[in-house]
Amino acid sequence: MSAKGPDLVIGIDLGGTNMRGALFRGLRAAAAKAATDPLGPDEKKALDPVAERREKVGSERAPATMVERMGAMVDSLLEEGGVRGAHVPVGIGLAGMLRGQSGIVAQSPHLGWRNVSLGEMMRTRLGPLHPLVVENDVNAITWGEFVLGAGRDVPDVLAVYVGTGIGGGAVCDGRLLRGGTGCAVEIGHTKVVFDDSARPCACGLKGCVEAYVGGEDLQRRARAELAGGARSAAVGIAGSPEAVNPGHLDAAAAEGDEYALNLWQEIGPLLGVALANAVTLFNPNRLILGGGVLSRTPVLRDYAIAALEVAINPPAQEDLAVENADLGDDAGLVGSALLALAP
Amino acid sequence: MSAKGPDLVIGIDLGGTNMRGALFRGLRAAAAKAATDPLGPDEKKALDPVAERREKVGSERAPATMVERMGAMVDSLLEEGGVRGAHVPVGIGLAGMLRGQSGIVAQSPHLGWRNVSLGEMMRTRLGPLHPLVVENDVNAITWGEFVLGAGRDVPDVLAVYVGTGIGGGAVCDGRLLRGGTGCAVEIGHTKVVFDDSARPCACGLKGCVEAYVGGEDLQRRARAELAGGARSAAVGIAGSPEAVNPGHLDAAAAEGDEYALNLWQEIGPLLGVALANAVTLFNPNRLILGGGVLSRTPVLRDYAIAALEVAINPPAQEDLAVENADLGDDAGLVGSALLALAP
Repeated sequence: MSAKGPDLVIGIDLGGTNMRGALFRGLRAAAAKAATDPLGPDEKKALDPVAERREKVGSERAPATMVERMGAMVDSLLEEGGVRGAHVPVGIGLAGMLRGQSGIVAQSPHLGWRNVSLGEMMRTRLGPLHPLVVENDVNAITWGEFVLGAGRDVPDVLAVYVGTGIGGGAVCDGRLLRGGTGCAVEIGHTKVVFDDSARPCACGLKGCVEAYVGGEDLQRRARAELAGGARSAAVGIAGSPEAVNPGHLDAAAAEGDEYALNLWQEIGPLLGVALANAVTLFNPNRLILGGGVLSRTPVLRDYAIAALEVAINPPAQEDLAVENADLGDDAGLVGSALLALAP
Repeated sequence: MSAKGPDLVIGIDLGGTNMRGALFRGLRAAAAKAATDPLGPDEKKALDPVAERREKVGSERAPATMVERMGAMVDSLLEEGGVRGAHVPVGIGLAGMLRGQSGIVAQSPHLGWRNVSLGEMMRTRLGPLHPLVVENDVNAITWGEFVLGAGRDVPDVLAVYVGTGIGGGAVCDGRLLRGGTGCAVEIGHTKVVFDDSARPCACGLKGCVEAYVGGEDLQRRARAELAGGARSAAVGIAGSPEAVNPGHLDAAAAEGDEYALNLWQEIGPLLGVALANAVTLFNPNRLILGGGVLSRTPVLRDYAIAALEVAINPPAQEDLAVENADLGDDAGLVGSALLALAP
């Protein structure tokens, strides 16, 4: 069976917590149509997987184990799709830093991997007739939004996701930006505080925007301050200081809570300036914002946007639109699948 | 005569002060060789123009006037090169913001132009048989360094020039980055100070790194502070406060002058962090530094590099080399010419 015939493709999203896989039908045709026309019902249908799997990564995450599990997931998706043994393209989006285009994972702190030849191992497992692409997960998401999501009608896209950490991806004149060592657009590690007060970041350096606005660092800081005596309505909303998350803080800020507002007024502009500087450098037509923190913190988002608008180089603002990510939780699956279809 | 036969090409560098033009021979062959081998004597010879012109832009700088003057310069270069009437490719690098790929100058504050169809006007003047490319001048310089200069052996290059202002260009995986509205990599207008102390920039916003380290702003500030009573050995070196330039300040800093050292300690790290954040985003293999200020301020450069090294995202530092621009004052001519030869 030809891979191009039935327009089937598999996307796999391998994160630190979950491993997901999906079989899509019609994605190639949808991508071709989306380049020129608005999405119609056929294109929206193509975004719904024909078959889908989700499992916890768990503690057994050695490369050989994960390769076998991903291989079994591919087999099972093809089986459910009624195309057992078909050589459909497979795209893997993975939380890690890739080196080159052959699927070498230079490092993945989430998976505990270093220098893993994932592409080669997967090719051995799947057989040489499955076209295979391995890509950083945020790059895959960005590519998905570029082809079929919030950036489908423009050539230059910058996508930034604020979740546990802060990640980003860029498409420049229709091409995914990877960088010299495969770690481009690490906007979370651009520095926004340079003085002695700069907060330490998980990367080992200080003053990164992730250390202020990344969900994990933000939550840890707020919980510590609230447990240490700071007063905020967020504690009442959450139940206890230890349960406070960014969404609770945003709800408190929306009600005028002083602690939450002060925090948002401190960190919102830091995110806004980091975004503005990246826009000044990449000059995208579309800035796409997403991620689990930003989707639950509309007040924080407003502070960031306000700072963004007064910090972008004016000529880069002329054709810029800021939009929310469009593909939601499936962006990684769709994007990985689309990368496997890309020429 | 075929344009490809004799490997001739013309580069024009149109700035706010000077207009330069040069006829090159052998640049296409040199570029092809440089992609795989070190530069030999033939390649270095190709960088020396066969014929060259330079004139002041002067006050008569209306588009029609400049088109006629550039056309006459092309004619004269071909005449001197012994190939009158030959349809050699012409590349124009211009201090301004381009829109799209057809040579529309959206704006050039230096020339006082807005929405000028320079490409169309030049094609009319030269005739349709001259291949023609119009590009932003810093992009042209960056392309020159990428093909035949300090970035010739790597795919991802970021070039930053600190002169009167601060400009930048990027080549990502072998392609010049232009951006959605043709104003990518305006690193001079990334923000490095966000508080109320932020210095105003010529762009109309505040806190841009150019407002601190750009030669014009830096010189104005130092002259004002020294005329206002600040004491520095730079005044003795320069002769008077009104004559002080960044080179004098650097010479004073090298001798331990307190005023100059304090200034360099303030602004060097701002440049370093702006560079580091851009490296974290573009992840180049090569950061190329040039421009009239940096070439005369080795002490300031050291402060910037020291800050850069502790602010870059570590994975982006793995394969990064920082080098000085290689093509000197001719980079704009060479780069424009090379762009006219690019496929």
